[in-house]
Amino acid sequence: MTKKLFVLNGSNLNMLGLREPELYGSATLDDVHADCERAAAELGFELFFAQSNAEHELVEWVHEAFRQKAIVVINPAGFSFGSVPLLDALHMLTTPVIEVHITNIHARDADHQHSIISKVARVVIAGAGVYGYELAIQVAGRLAGGGE
Amino acid sequence: MTKKLFVLNGSNLNMLGLREPELYGSATLDDVHADCERAAAELGFELFFAQSNAEHELVEWVHEAFRQKAIVVINPAGFSFGSVPLLDALHMLTTPVIEVHITNIHARDADHQHSIISKVARVVIAGAGVYGYELAIQVAGRLAGGGE
Amino acid sequence: MTKKLFVLNGSNLNMLGLREPELYGSATLDDVHADCERAAAELGFELFFAQSNAEHELVEWVHEAFRQKAIVVINPAGFSFGSVPLLDALHMLTTPVIEVHITNIHARDADHQHSIISKVARVVIAGAGVYGYELAIQVAGRLAGGGE
Amino acid sequence: MTKKLFVLNGSNLNMLGLREPELYGSATLDDVHADCERAAAELGFELFFAQSNAEHELVEWVHEAFRQKAIVVINPAGFSFGSVPLLDALHMLTTPVIEVHITNIHARDADHQHSIISKVARVVIAGAGVYGYELAIQVAGRLAGGGE
Amino acid sequence: MTKKLFVLNGSNLNMLGLREPELYGSATLDDVHADCERAAAELGFELFFAQSNAEHELVEWVHEAFRQKAIVVINPAGFSFGSVPLLDALHMLTTPVIEVHITNIHARDADHQHSIISKVARVVIAGAGVYGYELAIQVAGRLAGGGE
Amino acid sequence: MTKKLFVLNGSNLNMLGLREPELYGSATLDDVHADCERAAAELGFELFFAQSNAEHELVEWVHEAFRQKAIVVINPAGFSFGSVPLLDALHMLTTPVIEVHITNIHARDADHQHSIISKVARVVIAGAGVYGYELAIQVAGRLAGGGE
Amino acid sequence: MTKKLFVLNGSNLNMLGLREPELYGSATLDDVHADCERAAAELGFELFFAQSNAEHELVEWVHEAFRQKAIVVINPAGFSFGSVPLLDALHMLTTPVIEVHITNIHARDADHQHSIISKVARVVIAGAGVYGYELAIQVAGRLAGGGE
Amino acid sequence: MTKKLFVLNGSNLNMLGLREPELYGSATLDDVHADCERAAAELGFELFFAQSNAEHELVEWVHEAFRQKAIVVINPAGFSFGSVPLLDALHMLTTPVIEVHITNIHARDADHQHSIISKVARVVIAGAGVYGYELAIQVAGRLAGGGE
Amino acid sequence: MTKKLFVLNGSNLNMLGLREPELYGSATLDDVHADCERAAAELGFELFFAQSNAEHELVEWVHEAFRQKAIVVINPAGFSFGSVPLLDALHMLTTPVIEVHITNIHARDADHQHSIISKVARVVIAGAGVYGYELAIQVAGRLAGGGE
Amino acid sequence: MTKKLFVLNGSNLNMLGLREPELYGSATLDDVHADCERAAAELGFELFFAQSNAEHELVEWVHEAFRQKAIVVINPAGFSFGSVPLLDALHMLTTPVIEVHITNIHARDADHQHSIISKVARVVIAGAGVYGYELAIQVAGRLAGGGE
Amino acid sequence: MTKKLFVLNGSNLNMLGLREPELYGSATLDDVHADCERAAAELGFELFFAQSNAEHELVEWVHEAFRQKAIVVINPAGFSFGSVPLLDALHMLTTPVIEVHITNIHARDADHQHSIISKVARVVIAGAGVYGYELAIQVAGRLAGGGE
Amino acid sequence: MTKKLFVLNGSNLNMLGLREPELYGSATLDDVHADCERAAAELGFELFFAQSNAEHELVEWVHEAFRQKAIVVINPAGFSFGSVPLLDALHMLTTPVIEVHITNIHARDADHQHSIISKVARVVIAGAGVYGYELAIQVAGRLAGGGE
Repeated sequence: MTKKLFVLNGSNLNMLGLREPELYGSATLDDVHADCERAAAELGFELFFAQSNAEHELVEWVHEAFRQKAIVVINPAGFSFGSVPLLDALHMLTTPVIEVHITNIHARDADHQHSIISKVARVVIAGAGVYGYELAIQVAGRLAGGGE
Repeated sequence: MTKKLFVLNGSNLNMLGLREPELYGSATLDDVHADCERAAAELGFELFFAQSNAEHELVEWVHEAFRQKAIVVINPAGFSFGSVPLLDALHMLTTPVIEVHITNIHARDADHQHSIISKVARVVIAGAGVYGYELAIQVAGRLAGGGE
Repeated sequence: MTKKLFVLNGSNLNMLGLREPELYGSATLDDVHADCERAAAELGFELFFAQSNAEHELVEWVHEAFRQKAIVVINPAGFSFGSVPLLDALHMLTTPVIEVHITNIHARDADHQHSIISKVARVVIAGAGVYGYELAIQVAGRLAGGGE
Repeated sequence: MTKKLFVLNGSNLNMLGLREPELYGSATLDDVHADCERAAAELGFELFFAQSNAEHELVEWVHEAFRQKAIVVINPAGFSFGSVPLLDALHMLTTPVIEVHITNIHARDADHQHSIISKVARVVIAGAGVYGYELAIQVAGRLAGGGE
Repeated sequence: MTKKLFVLNGSNLNMLGLREPELYGSATLDDVHADCERAAAELGFELFFAQSNAEHELVEWVHEAFRQKAIVVINPAGFSFGSVPLLDALHMLTTPVIEVHITNIHARDADHQHSIISKVARVVIAGAGVYGYELAIQVAGRLAGGGE
Repeated sequence: MTKKLFVLNGSNLNMLGLREPELYGSATLDDVHADCERAAAELGFELFFAQSNAEHELVEWVHEAFRQKAIVVINPAGFSFGSVPLLDALHMLTTPVIEVHITNIHARDADHQHSIISKVARVVIAGAGVYGYELAIQVAGRLAGGGE
Repeated sequence: MTKKLFVLNGSNLNMLGLREPELYGSATLDDVHADCERAAAELGFELFFAQSNAEHELVEWVHEAFRQKAIVVINPAGFSFGSVPLLDALHMLTTPVIEVHITNIHARDADHQHSIISKVARVVIAGAGVYGYELAIQVAGRLAGGGE
Repeated sequence: MTKKLFVLNGSNLNMLGLREPELYGSATLDDVHADCERAAAELGFELFFAQSNAEHELVEWVHEAFRQKAIVVINPAGFSFGSVPLLDALHMLTTPVIEVHITNIHARDADHQHSIISKVARVVIAGAGVYGYELAIQVAGRLAGGGE
Repeated sequence: MTKKLFVLNGSNLNMLGLREPELYGSATLDDVHADCERAAAELGFELFFAQSNAEHELVEWVHEAFRQKAIVVINPAGFSFGSVPLLDALHMLTTPVIEVHITNIHARDADHQHSIISKVARVVIAGAGVYGYELAIQVAGRLAGGGE
Repeated sequence: MTKKLFVLNGSNLNMLGLREPELYGSATLDDVHADCERAAAELGFELFFAQSNAEHELVEWVHEAFRQKAIVVINPAGFSFGSVPLLDALHMLTTPVIEVHITNIHARDADHQHSIISKVARVVIAGAGVYGYELAIQVAGRLAGGGE
Repeated sequence: MTKKLFVLNGSNLNMLGLREPELYGSATLDDVHADCERAAAELGFELFFAQSNAEHELVEWVHEAFRQKAIVVINPAGFSFGSVPLLDALHMLTTPVIEVHITNIHARDADHQHSIISKVARVVIAGAGVYGYELAIQVAGRLAGGGE
Repeated sequence: MTKKLFVLNGSNLNMLGLREPELYGSATLDDVHADCERAAAELGFELFFAQSNAEHELVEWVHEAFRQKAIVVINPAGFSFGSVPLLDALHMLTTPVIEVHITNIHARDADHQHSIISKVARVVIAGAGVYGYELAIQVAGRLAGGGE
């Protein structure tokens, strides 16, 4: 039986690799997608990977994850800091939510310091660069396996 | 050439496994130590693992890490929320600091929500249980290898 | 002459009945729609009923209500707590706005306690469950009839 | 078996109809009383209707409602914004509390914007004028009948 | 035609002369009453002078002043700092309200620094001791005569 | 020569034993009265014991305590969190004020966390249940005897 | 022996009568000066009356008042809300300071609501229009005569 | 060689001329478009002019401006006060951003007073009505020409 | 008939060109004066141009502008962030006020972020360098001509 | 069977009797120890009494109390106002915590007004001088005996 | 070659020795001037010493210091707590600024606790009385000599 | 008769010269010790010089200073910003406390801006580098000699 995994990406992440590479690194979102496919496959996950600049698309993908009982890895990006619709959608899930930030948001400016999404996350990983996605998928593997 | 790794643990973590197991799990600090030894060995790290309820011991271990140019994985526990001496000591390091919290502190009460230590951390991992230590050591391996 | 009534529903309300039923009840949005049709028909209203997870669709339905001089009953859901575009759109109306919340938001957590939309509402009904929609339509009937 | 309903009115509501009629309307408290009698009778409620400018009288009427297991509809008026004794008295009830405000307090000045009483209310109706009392009694009817 | 003047006194002022005389002076409330009678008589005012420790009595005297279209001189004392019922009652008046404080409250501790009653007062006199009542009655005379 | 002791009780304490017994215990105010009588008698105090939901009654009992130079034990209950008139009345006393709370208010919600009355109390005892009254009377005995 | 009285006027008061007459009245500063001369003469005061838009001139007139041991009546106007130099200068005086505001500043917008100057004033009179100057001089007469 | 200029318009600006004309004027967005075309043509700019009520469309137009290295004139409207996704998108640009508001937002209510977008703008023009667009294009001309 | 225009400059602007040229540019205030003369002449304005480090001089120039019914362009510089006297003086004007800042103050540090002067400005232009003065004069031309 | 009781004392309490005796009294910590021994013995408690200026010693004594299932009476002194490690250690206990302060901290300055330790205390006694220790031991006796 | 030193004194310091001598000491500003002359001469400084109650004079002396490349010792007195013009002027300097306060402002009331001028000072000396000026000049000597 | 002087150093100062030398300079704590010995000897002080990363050691050295009636020069470093135990210990002293900071903390980030220790210091010297210790000892010499 296959396990479901959603990896969701928020605003501006389609520009990854182009946008402030000294801060976010030079990997593109396609590179991240490829890494996630490999990591998910190793752990037996069926992966859904997507990005959107539209809050409602993220909300609706979370609804779909709810229906499929998928684990959700999410980098909410700009939606981290004020999107109550996304917060409410994630709150609905009974499967774990793992939040990833490429940079350590806790060390950034006041507008980017506190994610409201963290209130509904089981695990938060910040500052590990795009490698954070792999770590998050490892955690998903643990949690899917009944670990911890 | 051997790489140095310090895994430092703050207040009350000597009680791990005894203290609120429904929140922190049943693994003891000795279990964590063993896990860290194994993970560090695999990555070729020479490990220093310690716990203290005394802020000054943590500060001085950080001084030692500074002298040895070690990477530091730290779970500051109760010192996360107000220890400027520890913040200042970690700020001195030129090697990376990786902060681990067993629970997702961002979803806890106001007294335990914002770690000031995160301001000097390169990576923050919260909520992955004691498995977070292994993830942190993986990150240390990456950073030591010039990864990310 | 037929009177126009818009009943608009914000983020995540498409999941009504599925999402935290102990908090929101087991009625679905289709049930609510049916109730509203019946209540609106009794009062001689021509009803437009819709839901969206996209802020801009709500904004544009409000623009349409402005053109049709319709009364607006709105459950802004997650948009209650920070959507200035929706606030501005509703502010444009010269017809009354009646705000409905299924739960008593004033008794919830800090993120869900104060609706900025209430600043432009004529009437606010919170905590009456989905029955609140019927109450809102009764109020609309009063206001359309020159009552109060 | 008769159901008990308390409709309680706070400070200055004895001046209703005289006080800022452009804000509160021209109906007097006697008019409201008559409307409530009719609405309560239709739903089979035995009504106790009262007003006081004295916080302690309201507190003691709530004690009486506690003894009689009555549903309470309350317009706390000036007591909404700081009366902890009234908050504590209402908190004692196991029957529902329905809070009514003639105007939409959420759109008023800072001194009149947030009712602390709402924390113990099941339902809050604001801005529907004196018609809000009728809506509240309808809600009471629902709740008494096991509705919602 | 006689002009009406209400001089109202709030909590603890019945203890005037006994309570912290180094702060409030040694005059009693009876002395103040006598001074006010003389000052009011000179200006042709019919005086109602009263004190209460009960907020509702003050509220109801303000209602009476509203009916008699009287000018109100009020020393709200402890009710200055949080009584919304009294604020609302005074807000109803179309005649002027003159607020008196025996001490300069603006120079006191945080609990006694800002009177919310001042928001509905026409004139505020603080720190002139019990002589402030005479000044207030002079102002009332001016305002009654169409002065200022 | 007999010593005077006032034990004063604020809002809702007449419901003691009925109101949330899991929080406040099952003893009634009459039980507390009996305990206080016995404890006061042992220490040679003449006791005045009373409860009111009306702030002004408490204020006036404090005035009486002032005249009789009595020690005051007070459980201000709901008046703890905002009653400046009561604060001012107690401030007048030259005899000690001992404040009692049945529960540990410091561990409750924000509305019930900080008593402004504590600013004028000599001693504060919170969380000892109704036994706190006996402790308070012991303290009164000490203070009356010149102890401490 | 002649008594000294300084009546000092702050920023923009030279425009009195021209500036927002519906708020400040139509009397000019010369009218106020004339009124003050008459009132001061009646009470045997030697008057110094001046206005400045320059903070340092007000500071230096206060220094002069210090040297002459004069009573100071001051309408600090725009300097009320932030001038620490003027606050410090007035703090030096051992003679009383009487603060006058033409309008009731406590009922104005947030920028004009709290005068820091009030912390060093003995008496504050606000909202009595230009008649407030006469009241202030009466108070000065009282205080000079040892009254209150 | 043609220079690129993006003029982007946020929420509700499609209703310009219809919405509160006493505040925003009677010009429609088509009028503004025509004015911008003329002004851009005079300065040799190739113009892209668009409006959206959807945050993600604005974000994606900014991505396009990034690719084309266009100067951006933006009236973020309702997105000014909280859209971190738009803030982050604009932050990516190396070309200048010129922010326009039709009204002087700094003089409006608290919800509309501080634009977070201003943190990444080079120039901010507020309150000049729709004429502000022309001024912004003049500034763009300067900056494109190496001016300032 | 000649139109009057005042261009007023606040603290430290006499040092323009010398002070932090990388922030403020290398143009001197004389250069700005010359630019303003030319721009004003083109639009038929009679120009008064002045700078002062003294708040009272600015206040009095505003008084003069009031008498001459002049439009005022003002760069309040250091007086932007706390001068109530200047705010009050500008508030008196019935002619428009156009506020200019050479840098985009909204993107600066907390001490220089919010101008209280903006509350009385019709138009605010920030960040356009000294070219902002020309833009402001163009706006003045529009407003004088009945434009917008 | 013997009951265990820990009486723990925080920073600077070794100086009791020497330090500000007008505030803390003249009894030394040895006197307190003797009093506690006598009071504990009467109630059949086995007493551990200690003081430390080192936070970690207090933390570790609390760990020991956890192991021995002892009741803890603690005067955290300077650790009351910010020690999260001590808060966390006490939170672990399933036996009651009784917090004692020699002075009434609630009436002190802002730095010494609110103890975070109170959040985990069952009972708080403040202001009873060193006699507070005896009261605390009486409470411990009650709680050990199943009282309250 | 002679080194330049400016010693500047802010508001009310001309009253030194007269004003609250128990707080500021009995030395006059002339005494301070003499001490500074002697100290400056010993270190080979050419001294400019001045005091003003006018903010603009201080600003202009700082401009002069800028032109002469002088080190500035400044006691801003009342200008410490809000003068942005002075802050901006000092910010311009490339030579060091040494801030002196006669009293320890950090231990005073809230209005006098935090100097905004400290943000641009290199060194701050507070509480050493007028002797602080001598210490400041010693520091100036060090800094002029290339020390530290 | 020899005078006693304690020079106490807080957290991380053992790393002086190694830690961020561009911020703290290259002198080591041994260098500072040597400088202090020389300066103390010149003024006839018997010196105790020590550093600790442990708060309790500093607290206990202050206790020793209390017993020896020594003047205390203290650089609390990381303990400046939250150590109430150290604050309380220093508060006990009747001899002067002189606080030294190597950098100007008032110009640093929010976590390092306001020392609570300053509330009990007589003199504060910040930003003079390690030379600040010498200045502090000079001040100690003055105060010991009855100067200032």
